[in-house]
Amino acid sequence: MSFSPLIRQLIDALRILPGVGQKTAQRMALHLLERDRSGGLRLSQALARAMDGVGYCQQCRTLSEDALCPQCSDPRRDDSLLCVVEGPLDVFAVEQTGYRGRYFVLKGHLSPLDGLGPEAIGIPELEQHIARGRFSEVILATNPTVEGEATAHYIAQLLAPRGLSLTRIAHGVPLGGELELVDGGTLAHAMAGRRPIGG
Amino acid sequence: MSFSPLIRQLIDALRILPGVGQKTAQRMALHLLERDRSGGLRLSQALARAMDGVGYCQQCRTLSEDALCPQCSDPRRDDSLLCVVEGPLDVFAVEQTGYRGRYFVLKGHLSPLDGLGPEAIGIPELEQHIARGRFSEVILATNPTVEGEATAHYIAQLLAPRGLSLTRIAHGVPLGGELELVDGGTLAHAMAGRRPIGG
Repeated sequence: MSFSPLIRQLIDALRILPGVGQKTAQRMALHLLERDRSGGLRLSQALARAMDGVGYCQQCRTLSEDALCPQCSDPRRDDSLLCVVEGPLDVFAVEQTGYRGRYFVLKGHLSPLDGLGPEAIGIPELEQHIARGRFSEVILATNPTVEGEATAHYIAQLLAPRGLSLTRIAHGVPLGGELELVDGGTLAHAMAGRRPIGG
Repeated sequence: MSFSPLIRQLIDALRILPGVGQKTAQRMALHLLERDRSGGLRLSQALARAMDGVGYCQQCRTLSEDALCPQCSDPRRDDSLLCVVEGPLDVFAVEQTGYRGRYFVLKGHLSPLDGLGPEAIGIPELEQHIARGRFSEVILATNPTVEGEATAHYIAQLLAPRGLSLTRIAHGVPLGGELELVDGGTLAHAMAGRRPIGG
């Protein structure tokens, strides 16, 4: 009752953002109102334009307002490589590695308990995409979670008859950590996947 | 380069929110685009309406789209009590305590090094407000920081000739903590401000 209606509505609306609770929403609303109204208006416009204008790339199915996303419309990328990920943020993450092949973006991972089967996450479209393309390698870069692994294995089985090279991103110890802090499962993968060094 | 322009603009715009960096902004943008477009549109509208419509209460100077904020327009509140705070969020905090007097909202605290003198934070308006009202007590509830204390003392000196009761919120140990974790300055205040108990 201590904020006027428009401010209360703004605080409520900010709470739809992930990770934003009541206190953070209050702080955000008052910050914009007291210090950055032009920024607030710019955010309002950016939201309206993106919510109305952004759809999905016709080829890789990532979010994009154009028929083809920046990755699919770039003629300089390697058409023989396809990287399969769970969502648009993963495209961003893989781009940071210097990968310059193509992508296919699933809608998450298989999750039978939630009723998410192959159709729900877009695996038929992935098959069509691969049938139309001329890929020599498909990199399965779903998340290193139980569901992500299961999804990668499902896709690998499905694609096996096509005679493509099917690869999975490596599991192992992350750079910069300490061995004693790495969980046992990860360390077991790192040991099993050991490679020759030097010489 | 891996997001299309509208998505990049949305991510940039979200970064004006306090505490939101690049990764959080990406997560927020993709969450809205993939899971909650109607929420995103509602946030866009709430922002536009609040940025354009919210001004300041004519009496207490808190943020409000009406000429009088909910606190100033409520006839049932105690007109003899005035609580002076540094900002609109403090009104919300003090309301939680059950206080039902009136408010005056400064624009922050005195900060000579930043060029913020009495005029910049609205102290002349506070004096006019008190001259017009019939307050018997003025509670100085600026923050318990060096600047907040200095601001409270400045206002107390300024108002001393008016014969009002001038009070400052108590300093002491917060509820629910452990004494050994309380800083020395706070504990010294708590000792000096000790009060009789029981009997």
